[in-house]
Amino acid sequence: MNYKKLFEQIKLKKSFLCVGLDSDIAKIPAHLQNTDDPVFEFNKAIVDATAEFTVAYKPNIAFYECRGAAGWKTLEKTVNYIKTNYPDIFLIADAKRGDIGNTSKMYAEAFLENMPFDSITVAPYMGEDSVTPFLAYEGKWVILLALTSNKGAFDFQFFEQNNQKLFEKVLEKSKEWGTQENMMYVVGATKAEMLEDIRKAEMLANIRKIAPNHFLLVPGVGAQGGSLQEVAKYGMNSSCGLLVNSSRGIIFADTSENFAVTAGKKAKALQQEMELLLKQKAVIDK
Amino acid sequence: MNYKKLFEQIKLKKSFLCVGLDSDIAKIPAHLQNTDDPVFEFNKAIVDATAEFTVAYKPNIAFYECRGAAGWKTLEKTVNYIKTNYPDIFLIADAKRGDIGNTSKMYAEAFLENMPFDSITVAPYMGEDSVTPFLAYEGKWVILLALTSNKGAFDFQFFEQNNQKLFEKVLEKSKEWGTQENMMYVVGATKAEMLEDIRKAEMLANIRKIAPNHFLLVPGVGAQGGSLQEVAKYGMNSSCGLLVNSSRGIIFADTSENFAVTAGKKAKALQQEMELLLKQKAVIDK
Repeated sequence: MNYKKLFEQIKLKKSFLCVGLDSDIAKIPAHLQNTDDPVFEFNKAIVDATAEFTVAYKPNIAFYECRGAAGWKTLEKTVNYIKTNYPDIFLIADAKRGDIGNTSKMYAEAFLENMPFDSITVAPYMGEDSVTPFLAYEGKWVILLALTSNKGAFDFQFFEQNNQKLFEKVLEKSKEWGTQENMMYVVGATKAEMLEDIRKAEMLANIRKIAPNHFLLVPGVGAQGGSLQEVAKYGMNSSCGLLVNSSRGIIFADTSENFAVTAGKKAKALQQEMELLLKQKAVIDK
Repeated sequence: MNYKKLFEQIKLKKSFLCVGLDSDIAKIPAHLQNTDDPVFEFNKAIVDATAEFTVAYKPNIAFYECRGAAGWKTLEKTVNYIKTNYPDIFLIADAKRGDIGNTSKMYAEAFLENMPFDSITVAPYMGEDSVTPFLAYEGKWVILLALTSNKGAFDFQFFEQNNQKLFEKVLEKSKEWGTQENMMYVVGATKAEMLEDIRKAEMLANIRKIAPNHFLLVPGVGAQGGSLQEVAKYGMNSSCGLLVNSSRGIIFADTSENFAVTAGKKAKALQQEMELLLKQKAVIDK
């Protein structure tokens, strides 16, 4: 899926919501546990209930991989289900991969060739040749970790050389490898408790100076406690330029038999908030 | 497997060889391609031929994952075969994982709980809470990326703050999370072409200043062109402190029906070189 089409979907659905399928089998509603593939049944119901409000789904690969070959089959079934039934929805493999060239090539094959993912999250530590094999697929994207939303982000991502922080260096350098048409960035650090340490507005503004047009994947609305308004205020550009993820806040909002209906309501509430923000920023007409 | 036992195995086998199972199905000898599980048959033969000379095996997870659920089954069969038949050999999941805490926990479960790996390679970019879930298993290890052997290592790992390079910061900081009993480091940059840019001796000496007792996993002997003598000269400590990996140089040295015999010879040649180095450094008796 290209930039233009993704932006069209955002305008059509008046939403920049990404739903994270962190589908922990231990948290799946009890009544699904006796089915052949509880996680697939769960994902299917969540997707059907939320697709109307959602422009992207993001399976978190660890939650499938921890179940071995069976988990891998669930993952394949899930993404095939989504691509078949909702072909215009952007699919993100949240995999945080990255290795030497010949190995990244194999990971790229796993996610971008053998499965219908549109994109994969990649860790930048090993540099250019660990990232570029993922960029070899027309219409597919790398979503590179820049500034993550966890506490450990402060350990290395703020390491500073000549007034440039490491995450800024990652943004700067990686622009030599890809463009706004095939690279996005993970930008988190939207958590309230981080505000005591750093100036968030300044930081997001700096990111937008380095990457004004790139899409940013923002984790952490919902269970991780980010604020949608603040993200939109500092991060939205004229093509929206944002995919904001919510996982647990939607998919595990309700663990009764009614879980999918509740998930749909939660997704709708976020979509409506997003619609307002898109209008305020004049990305879509009022 | 603990530090003491690993060192005992090194003394017993007079070897610090790790064989990388980067078992690309496209490179498996033709006569195995018609078996039920060509990669497993290949791995089994390679392991049986090289186990005598080897203290560690390191399946490269990408080469299994690119085959989906089937590849995952091959991986499970391979590591179970090794642990059953060669229980004293150290098993490394070369996975380069790392994500927020609840997700790293799932990756840890996948490799250290559901499969009998002794260790997993982890990328440091996301900091402490992305690494510590892997340290929760008694007798299991994190092998943290510090200085990798690829060209892209120069993109970010040499970023410098107050005369400290990022990979040195990673070593320094991560010593707060684990000890020499549960953490090793990937230290590469042993390739000849890198010598023009940096002073290798100084660099390895610096690493040994920061982490004098930790084991270092050194990729790149063989196909990647590192020199065993130089690695031993600057990196070996009184407990050896090294696991040196060779992948393609052993497993794909010969693609005829005779592949396993050749792999055994290649492994033996490296073991004999290692035995000399261990004696020169008085780690074992002459």
